Amino acid sequence: MDRYEEMLSRTGRALRPNAIRKLTALLGRGDVISLAAGAPSPETFPQEELAEIAARVIREKGKFALQYGPTRGQSSLVEKVAETMLARGVEKAATEQVVMTTGSQQGLDLISRVILDPGDVAMVELPSYIGGTIALYNAGAELVGVRQDDSGIDIDDLDAKLDRLRSSGRRVKCIYTISNFQNPSGVTLSAGRRSQLVEVADRHDLLIIEDDPYYELYFSGEQPPITPLAALRPDRVVYLSSYSKVLAPGLRTAWVFAPEGLASKIELAKEGADLSSSVLDQAIVAEALRSGLVEGRLPELRKFYEVRCRAMLDTLASHAPQTARWTRPVGGFFVLLEAAAHIDTTELLPAAIESGVAYVPGQPFFVDSSGANTLRLAYSKETPENIGEGIRRLCRLLG
Amino acid sequence: MDRYEEMLSRTGRALRPNAIRKLTALLGRGDVISLAAGAPSPETFPQEELAEIAARVIREKGKFALQYGPTRGQSSLVEKVAETMLARGVEKAATEQVVMTTGSQQGLDLISRVILDPGDVAMVELPSYIGGTIALYNAGAELVGVRQDDSGIDIDDLDAKLDRLRSSGRRVKCIYTISNFQNPSGVTLSAGRRSQLVEVADRHDLLIIEDDPYYELYFSGEQPPITPLAALRPDRVVYLSSYSKVLAPGLRTAWVFAPEGLASKIELAKEGADLSSSVLDQAIVAEALRSGLVEGRLPELRKFYEVRCRAMLDTLASHAPQTARWTRPVGGFFVLLEAAAHIDTTELLPAAIESGVAYVPGQPFFVDSSGANTLRLAYSKETPENIGEGIRRLCRLLG
Repeated sequence: MDRYEEMLSRTGRALRPNAIRKLTALLGRGDVISLAAGAPSPETFPQEELAEIAARVIREKGKFALQYGPTRGQSSLVEKVAETMLARGVEKAATEQVVMTTGSQQGLDLISRVILDPGDVAMVELPSYIGGTIALYNAGAELVGVRQDDSGIDIDDLDAKLDRLRSSGRRVKCIYTISNFQNPSGVTLSAGRRSQLVEVADRHDLLIIEDDPYYELYFSGEQPPITPLAALRPDRVVYLSSYSKVLAPGLRTAWVFAPEGLASKIELAKEGADLSSSVLDQAIVAEALRSGLVEGRLPELRKFYEVRCRAMLDTLASHAPQTARWTRPVGGFFVLLEAAAHIDTTELLPAAIESGVAYVPGQPFFVDSSGANTLRLAYSKETPENIGEGIRRLCRLLG
Repeated sequence: MDRYEEMLSRTGRALRPNAIRKLTALLGRGDVISLAAGAPSPETFPQEELAEIAARVIREKGKFALQYGPTRGQSSLVEKVAETMLARGVEKAATEQVVMTTGSQQGLDLISRVILDPGDVAMVELPSYIGGTIALYNAGAELVGVRQDDSGIDIDDLDAKLDRLRSSGRRVKCIYTISNFQNPSGVTLSAGRRSQLVEVADRHDLLIIEDDPYYELYFSGEQPPITPLAALRPDRVVYLSSYSKVLAPGLRTAWVFAPEGLASKIELAKEGADLSSSVLDQAIVAEALRSGLVEGRLPELRKFYEVRCRAMLDTLASHAPQTARWTRPVGGFFVLLEAAAHIDTTELLPAAIESGVAYVPGQPFFVDSSGANTLRLAYSKETPENIGEGIRRLCRLLG
């Protein structure tokens, strides 16, 4: 079991995704306001509609929805995903490019297993989503972090690091990016940077792993998201998105969209990994899409999260100490806050919980172990009032 | 992508699980009787009951059942599994030993990833389940086959092969066995062989991977299954079982039961692989168990498959040529038939389909590429009448 233990130890101080969720539960007082959990609010789950759909799907299509299903996913859902990719700006989208997965986490794991050999280098954002970095680690990759600013990946930093890695003989296979409303930073990769990133990827022959679970959750005052990298350079991008944030994560239904050859390999890897994702979940999601339930709720959902983001940003503006800086997302679930340099947010966490507010320390999101003075704030689960109060409690500690 | 392609090529002629399902679909005439697909009959799915349960679970527990869930699985389901393990003869069963998985295929994949390093040897039965051998291959293992007879693994052959491998410096990590009503052979590992297997595993320090999806599907005239290996030597066995065959495979709900330390590693691997299996599926299965739906249907299910097995065995007895031999399962879904030595069942398949019957050629189940004259017959999906007619069609070809 040496190799597995080694893989685990390589994740270093990383808090694994479930550990983040356990954190508040373990440390919580009764009245702690949790800005830690990055899950959608259960208030947004259309329970009644899904109850009806589930019963109907099992009654009318149970012979298929309860049976083993195709590894790539239920055919009507796969077709719908191809349509969605066209709507997101991709010029051509064949069903042969789609693989349904058990959440995007499985997509990240399968892609990593298919494209990476032990010792390969994968470039990731500083900070980046821990589930993504773990998938890359688990495939034996070495991760190298690239700086981000308010427009996303710092292209000069990326280019310089790629040159250095290449000249020292390293094989750099891919760059992993969460292009919209990133987890954990809330930052969006700008249109200009997207073009530059594609150029750099061309020059260095990199695959781009574009993880885009929050695409639909842009705020109502803003334009729809910028054209995905997958639309800019389809032969070089494997794109992931999900129904977890727009419908319900417990249904564990997401997709990978990739060049056909790569999609076939991902399908094969998935066959060995679990034969198929839940067939019932896929049938429910397909019916929720067909009936217009998903599409119809989007304006309301965007509003739901925008109001909460606004509460967080407004309270930060009025209460944060001058030493603090934070991001200003235009969609998604997260704000990243950078406290004064001397503050270690991991050490501060018990005191924060004692004061009635929880967050996720930022350092585990940084593969170079920087970011000790950062923390992630999620506005996805609490009420606007609680978010305001939670931020006030936090700001008193950061002052 | 070299490593992945190499892994694929190592599976050789193996028909992957989905390919088996596609086979008949692709080649089928309208009236082909399929003895190929190893899936449960959809007639056995309790559609109405599951429709009610699904709607109720979503209405009453949707805030949890539609949300992200714990990686190990829903707590009430995990507790139920621990009880089930006690009922199957294990002396102590803690919830810390259980991990719920997306079907047993995911369990096999996670176990393989956790325990195997590339180049390690895994022992497997000749023949064995292709999904199991693929999971082992995908973790980089070399597979060595062990002969089986009507009582299961040939212990002398195992012992001799282990000695030879060890003396040539190979690291043998585990043996993979499907102890009851094996897929594809239908053979059950006898009580005596189980004791011997555990002794050999002790002597050679092997982990036993015991895959037991058909445990509950013993035939009514027979005794309940023999004590699992997991009950004989709990510190050396990782045990897998599933709700796919007793409830519905589309719910993709199965479990791994392992020594605590190993279960923790499997949980960590699962976290990176998909965060958790479908939370809704688990909630539905938990409610189906709590309400007695699963338990209550077992006598009827056993009868359902026994009648079909009987139809197959009776027709073979009256119609098979003298050159043919076949197994006589006391549970599960499968009979393995060995035709005259000169018959290649892969080459014969198009003619069989032309004659209106489909089966799965046996060779892909043999990791040493033997078994060219064998074929797998599933009695799980067709009616007894069709099974009889299918076997008659087949026997005319084998004569």
